[in-house]
Formats: sequence, structure tokens, C-alpha cells
Amino acid sequence: MSDHHTPPSVLIVGAGAIGGLYGAILHRAGLPVSLVARSDSELIRQRGMRVDSADLGCLDWQPEAVYADTSEVPQPPDLLLLTVKVLDDLDRVALIRPAVGRHTTIALIENGLDIESPITGALPDNQLISCIAFVAASRTAPGTVEHKAYGRLVVGQYPSGLSDGARDFASWIEAGGLTTKLTDEVITERWRKAVWNAAFNTISVAGGGVTTTEILAAPGGEEMMRGLMQEVCAVAAAAGHPLPGELPEKSLASTHNIRDYYTSMALDYLHGRPLELEAITGNVLRTARRLDVATPLLASAYALARLQVTRASRG
Amino acid sequence: MSDHHTPPSVLIVGAGAIGGLYGAILHRAGLPVSLVARSDSELIRQRGMRVDSADLGCLDWQPEAVYADTSEVPQPPDLLLLTVKVLDDLDRVALIRPAVGRHTTIALIENGLDIESPITGALPDNQLISCIAFVAASRTAPGTVEHKAYGRLVVGQYPSGLSDGARDFASWIEAGGLTTKLTDEVITERWRKAVWNAAFNTISVAGGGVTTTEILAAPGGEEMMRGLMQEVCAVAAAAGHPLPGELPEKSLASTHNIRDYYTSMALDYLHGRPLELEAITGNVLRTARRLDVATPLLASAYALARLQVTRASRG
Repeated sequence: MSDHHTPPSVLIVGAGAIGGLYGAILHRAGLPVSLVARSDSELIRQRGMRVDSADLGCLDWQPEAVYADTSEVPQPPDLLLLTVKVLDDLDRVALIRPAVGRHTTIALIENGLDIESPITGALPDNQLISCIAFVAASRTAPGTVEHKAYGRLVVGQYPSGLSDGARDFASWIEAGGLTTKLTDEVITERWRKAVWNAAFNTISVAGGGVTTTEILAAPGGEEMMRGLMQEVCAVAAAAGHPLPGELPEKSLASTHNIRDYYTSMALDYLHGRPLELEAITGNVLRTARRLDVATPLLASAYALARLQVTRASRG
Repeated sequence: MSDHHTPPSVLIVGAGAIGGLYGAILHRAGLPVSLVARSDSELIRQRGMRVDSADLGCLDWQPEAVYADTSEVPQPPDLLLLTVKVLDDLDRVALIRPAVGRHTTIALIENGLDIESPITGALPDNQLISCIAFVAASRTAPGTVEHKAYGRLVVGQYPSGLSDGARDFASWIEAGGLTTKLTDEVITERWRKAVWNAAFNTISVAGGGVTTTEILAAPGGEEMMRGLMQEVCAVAAAAGHPLPGELPEKSLASTHNIRDYYTSMALDYLHGRPLELEAITGNVLRTARRLDVATPLLASAYALARLQVTRASRG
């Protein structure tokens, strides 16, 4: 990363809710931020990125440059921030590689488990910062993001430890107005988030696009969610990332406090968009199989979520 | 039951697929059959019951009498055959009681577990024949039934044993053109059917109205169905009705041979009709709870089926 006197150049790849919001935050922190917007580049070039935040107000920002494709980027940024969804048919390495230079630090704010390894595998000499967002934000129209609540970013060096790059990145996010938590065990943090994510995202789709409130109100719903979260905890422990035993119960209690919340996967499902089911649930199940951990509930929830997608695509 | 020289009078309560079809069969066997049709009585009185059978051809029949309500029945029949769906908000005892005389034998052809006890509880002096239909038939319009395949009836005295009444009833069904199997353990037979029924009916709704082929084709789908059927077998065994260990595997194999089959509950779900979820799945789960048998998969499938109904009713 560049020294502290010149602000580092940032390139965000992905102009959805996450790219739009955290781009606004880094812009607000005074960094020069450019953007790769695969579908909305012309619009965003003309009128900037619109970000409306319930907590922080209007965060509209104009990127330094807007590209339709990473191959158009004239020179590698100091920091490349990847914020696209992790989907089966998207080669994220091919997407970013043209803009990655020798000294480019890569950061990602994405959902899922084991999503870093393809990137470090293909670009082993670049530092990788892995971030997990706890945020309620959605892209409501092209180039338009609504930030409803939260926004905390868990930031760590991948696969573990803390680097100056990770510390710097977290400090910019803080300077831009959101909170961060540094971690030296980012994989464990991904498992921690997967406990809720794999359980509630999968069931919200398996149930046909239902809210967390509806899930917990269904007869047997709470017991089902507890069982699912316990299975993910068991896989995490077998993978060398034990989590606190009370995590499922605490997650249930806090989920009871959120009203009528649609998971990101439920929203994707209801809008007919592709799902991050493999990055989230699929990767838990693959780890479980590899380590011979029984996950009958999660495997069934996954099968039912797949069935919903089949049924929905049938019309 | 009356002696063998006068054919016994039959009153069928329920003019759906089962009542229409087995009424046609008893009519074909030469018995005088009347019908209680709660919603289509006028139509059926005018033009009879239309039954089109893939195997047996046209089985259209005219009931001796058609009533809109059991209270209109002038005198108790020798045999009252109950063929309504078992639904939470339907009091089947109240439905049949006005037509049940001292010597009326009651027979039922209905789905579910433990569905006989309300009837023997309220009418302990009447003989009860419990039947389980293996049939693909549906009511395609008021007073109109399509019999697509199968039709075998498992017939037994409730709670166990074999009576002359059960033997006679089976012989009339055979005389009418369908096959029967007499059993002296009808409750065990209900559990046997529940293994497939609870698993596939529940998942076909939990999946949003999907076919057995779609269920088995889903990634992890077959393993899920095996797990569900094993859970029902464990409950059956704990309830004193052990089933052959190979039943789940055999059921899976035979289900693979049926193409694009919608369970009765999936059809009810897709047509917005009430489901027999309590009679089938709910009663397995209640037995499991009472006997302390773990059924995490079935409880989750039940919760998800309930979620689907919630979601569908939300529109």
C-alpha cells in the first residue's frame, strides 16, 4: 500500500449495495475511489452513485472514474475492493485480474465461506483483506442504494493475523462513518456469520421467500433453526473453528427482535435473481462431507431451497 | 350387517374422488348406494356421479338417493362409508352421527394415522372397518372423478382383527372390480402407508408444490427422503408397529419408477384447498413427542410445509 502522505487509490469492483455503500464511506474518508460497474456504468458516470443512509443521510458520491469492465482500468489501484456476489457462474479471479498490479492490495466484502481461496490461489503475491459486513442495504435501482441499518465491518488479514493493510482499511471505514472490528481469525468470523447465514438464508428460500419472523412463528420453526445452527457449529468445530456453545441461542434471541426481515437470499429469490446458496450453504455442506460431520437438517434445507428455485423457474 | 340375501344398503358420506370411485365400485357390485354430497348434491341428483377410469372404463353411476346433509337421511344404512378428507376444522363424528343407527357398520377410506379413535370414541357400539386406499384418483369437477391408476384397498377391522363385516366389504370391492388386501393389523398398515405419505406429502408441500420426481432429483433430495422415512419407521416401532427395515429403500425405489407424480397434498396445496397435514404428519409428530422419539427432519419438513401455506395465503 502507498505511504500515508498520498491517499491510496481505490478501485471498487461491483456497483451493487455493498460497493455503492462502502464506496461512499471510503469517498467520505477522503480517498480517491473509482468504480467498475458492469451494467450501470453509463448512468453512474453521468450522475454518480446515489446512496441514501438512514443513519448517515445522503451519501451520494461521484467516482473518480467509472469503467464498464476491469480491462478498461488504465493502471492498477493501490487497493482493489471486490464487492460482487459470489455466484457459481461468475469467475471472480478473471473479473479482477486485469486491474491487479504487483503491489495492489485486494480486499473483499462478500458473503460465504472459503470464498478467499480461489483468489489467493490465483494471485498468491497480493495481500488479501477479508471483510464481513453486518449491514442492511439494498440496491433499489441502477446506481441507487438504500442503507437501512447497521454497517459494521469485520476486517482481517486472510488467512489469519493482522496486517498494516487491514488496520489501514479499517481506519478508513471508521473515518468514513461506519464501525469496524479487527480480527486476527477472519475464517472463524466467517464461520460465526455462517451459523446464522446458512440457517436463515437457506430456510428463507426453502420456505418460498419468507421473513425471519414468519420462520420463527411457524410451528416447530424455532426448533428447526436451533437444530440447523447447531449443525453449522459442529462443522465449524470440526474445521478447527470452534464457536461459543451459546451462539445458536443468542442468535435466535436477537433474531426474535428483528421484525419482518427478509434475508439477502430471500430477496434474491423473490426478485428472481441468482442466489449465493453455494457460497454460503453449499460450502458448509462440502466441508461437512469432507470432515464427515452429519448435517441432515442443513442438507434437507439445501435440497428444499434448490427445489424452490426449480419450482420458481418452472413458473 | 344384513343377511346375505338382501344386499345391504350403503350410504357414502363424501362425494369427492374416493367417494365417487368406491361408490361406483359398490354400485357395480350390485349394492344400493346413496350419497351425501355436501356441496354438489343438486348436480349429482340430476345427472349422477361421473367416474372415468383408465382401467375400468366409464363407471358413471346414479345414487339411489343424494342428500345435501346427513340429517336428511331417512333411515340408517347397513353400511356407512366415510370418504371425506380428515381436516382440522371438520367434525367427522358430527357429520355422520345423524345417519348412524344401532346396527350400522361404519367403514372409512381415509388418509392419516389415528383417525379412527374419534369415531370409535363417540360411537363405541358400531363396528368400524378401516380402509387404506392405494389409488390415483382425483375430483376434476363437481360430481366428476378421474381414476388414473391403482385402486387397491387394504381392509381391516379397527383396532385389529378381521370381522365378517370386513370380509364382506372387501368381497364387494372385489366384485366391483378392484383388488383388496385383508389385514388383521390395520394400524400397522396405516403406519406402513404413513412412511411414504408423511415423507412425500409433507415435502411436496414444503417444496412449494413439487412432484416426487422433482424431489428425488434435487441435490440431496433422495437422502432427505430416506432420512424422513427412517424417522417415521422409528416412531412406528416405538408405537408398537415395527416395519421392515428395508421399507424406506423399497419405497424410494418404487417412487423412482413413478414419473411426475403430485401427492394428494401437493395437489391440495396447488389448488388452494385445505391440507390433511395434521392427520398425516401432525399425528406422526404427536406420537413421536409422546414416545420421546427424535424426528428433527420430519418436524422441520412440517414447519416448512406450514410456512408454505402461510406464504401462499399471503398471496
